Amino acid sequence: MIDAYFNEILKDINATIANYIKGNVKELYEASYYLFQAGGKRLRPLMLVASSDLVGGERIRAILAGSAVEVLHTFTLIHDDIMDQDTLRRGMPTVHVKYGVPMAILAGDLLHAKAFQILNDALSGMESNLITKAFRIFTDAILVISEGQALDMQFEDRKSISEGEYLDMINRKTAKLFSASTALGALIGKASDDVVKKLEDFGLLLGISFQIVDDILGLTANEEELGKPLYSDIREGKKTILVIKALEMANEEEKRIILQNLGNRNASKEELKQTADIIKKYSLNYAYELADNYYKQALDKLDSIEWKNELAGKALKYIAEFTVKRRK
Amino acid sequence: MIDAYFNEILKDINATIANYIKGNVKELYEASYYLFQAGGKRLRPLMLVASSDLVGGERIRAILAGSAVEVLHTFTLIHDDIMDQDTLRRGMPTVHVKYGVPMAILAGDLLHAKAFQILNDALSGMESNLITKAFRIFTDAILVISEGQALDMQFEDRKSISEGEYLDMINRKTAKLFSASTALGALIGKASDDVVKKLEDFGLLLGISFQIVDDILGLTANEEELGKPLYSDIREGKKTILVIKALEMANEEEKRIILQNLGNRNASKEELKQTADIIKKYSLNYAYELADNYYKQALDKLDSIEWKNELAGKALKYIAEFTVKRRK
Repeated sequence: MIDAYFNEILKDINATIANYIKGNVKELYEASYYLFQAGGKRLRPLMLVASSDLVGGERIRAILAGSAVEVLHTFTLIHDDIMDQDTLRRGMPTVHVKYGVPMAILAGDLLHAKAFQILNDALSGMESNLITKAFRIFTDAILVISEGQALDMQFEDRKSISEGEYLDMINRKTAKLFSASTALGALIGKASDDVVKKLEDFGLLLGISFQIVDDILGLTANEEELGKPLYSDIREGKKTILVIKALEMANEEEKRIILQNLGNRNASKEELKQTADIIKKYSLNYAYELADNYYKQALDKLDSIEWKNELAGKALKYIAEFTVKRRK
Repeated sequence: MIDAYFNEILKDINATIANYIKGNVKELYEASYYLFQAGGKRLRPLMLVASSDLVGGERIRAILAGSAVEVLHTFTLIHDDIMDQDTLRRGMPTVHVKYGVPMAILAGDLLHAKAFQILNDALSGMESNLITKAFRIFTDAILVISEGQALDMQFEDRKSISEGEYLDMINRKTAKLFSASTALGALIGKASDDVVKKLEDFGLLLGISFQIVDDILGLTANEEELGKPLYSDIREGKKTILVIKALEMANEEEKRIILQNLGNRNASKEELKQTADIIKKYSLNYAYELADNYYKQALDKLDSIEWKNELAGKALKYIAEFTVKRRK
């Protein structure tokens, strides 16, 4: 039943995106649409639509707003891949590898504007005050995500990052778009300010959990599951919670090995694997517990709201569980 | 009197931009604010505010919307400079030269979102239907500008471009943001649909004229006036109206020289100058006449509207005249 619920939403989201991302400058729209065809879990639109359903919102507006969020998310992926020099995403060459950096920058910009176009259509005819609030959530999210990406890049060049700094960074870079999704769903579903806030918190807590699990999978999943090269986080010098914890706990020799290979784009497969093994030894359990803790806090938020739609509530719980138990 | 009119607007626009483009991730906001400090004519916000004044709009909303347009314009400059590999803008190193490509991509993205944030504030409290229309003008403009930039890049790799294709490209890449500015000014000034359309047309015609003059200055102005290296359009293989006309009129030997140096990033100063001289010989008068023709059509549009503010009308005429007579 939850499968059918998700599938119906996914069908509408994908059709909406396909309908909006087309135009008469062929290569630009091809490059812009490319990543949608490569897969993706569509977690954010699913959360937005389920949040709207949960409070009794109009489905058609939620589908449009959900599509806007997915389009926005895809723009950030395209630009992040250029900045991080990533070559694979969802098992396919990244947009800038396939179409070149200039076209990838432009495709991201087009999707950024498209996201606003779709959101504008989602809100058309609603009350003025609500439209303004919705755009504020959306723009705030992008600004905060950009700040998070800047911090993430700055952290690559810094030797020591605290757990607090890491959490602040993933709050911005990842969790903010989760919380914007659930808040938007609740808002356009005309929920009370209190319910909007609680669903926003649910999204934020789940988003933090999601990113921690993502960092774990970067060291534990295989290349096919990841859809990108193994240990790319280590190669790029990403200061994940696992790296931070391991640097705190490892002995001097192990610490030396980690620091030598972290951010070293010429490190060999063996060196990367050795580094990953040390990191995992000290931090895997800790990271899983941390993710689980945020997951449970998220569930508490969800349980504190009156559900107007039982299936939507169960769907949100399912997504929350998937977030911490997934293998990709 | 017109000077005082412009200066007051400029002061408010610059203060608004300074007020919005700040935040606690230092390098990101520095890179984002950098180009505003390097100068710039602020033509688009001036046109937006004067259009709003012309129809009797609220100045404070126009200042915010004008700031949004300038911030949007600046985002496109930062990203275009990366795509075109330009190293100088307004006499200063471009953002990606100063801060690196990743930070420049991110700064552009931040400004893109900031533009929407500022526009949202400009529209706050207005009627729902007007908010939706304003966001539609804004998003349409960005989509069309992105298409124009894609065409501009594609044209670099094509040998032959028609005058019609060129005009379509600059319509999108340049004129669209002029027309969006005047249309937005009229719309938030609560002008009738007819007046909004006429001011939109005024902006579009003037924008075409502006770009033709820009292409002329690329071959006739000196480096200081341009704020960028001489003949960079030729080096980048830009298919301007002057190049198109010259290729149509030149003899075989001259044509060979043009095609040899156009888009050749290794061409010497002498080769670039020789090419520019040939192009100018055949196309300078033609291009000036074409720009003048659009300028006059723009003035006709402006004269077809009832002016509620004489000074604002004169200011728009002044901007129009500046557009075709400027030396930088």
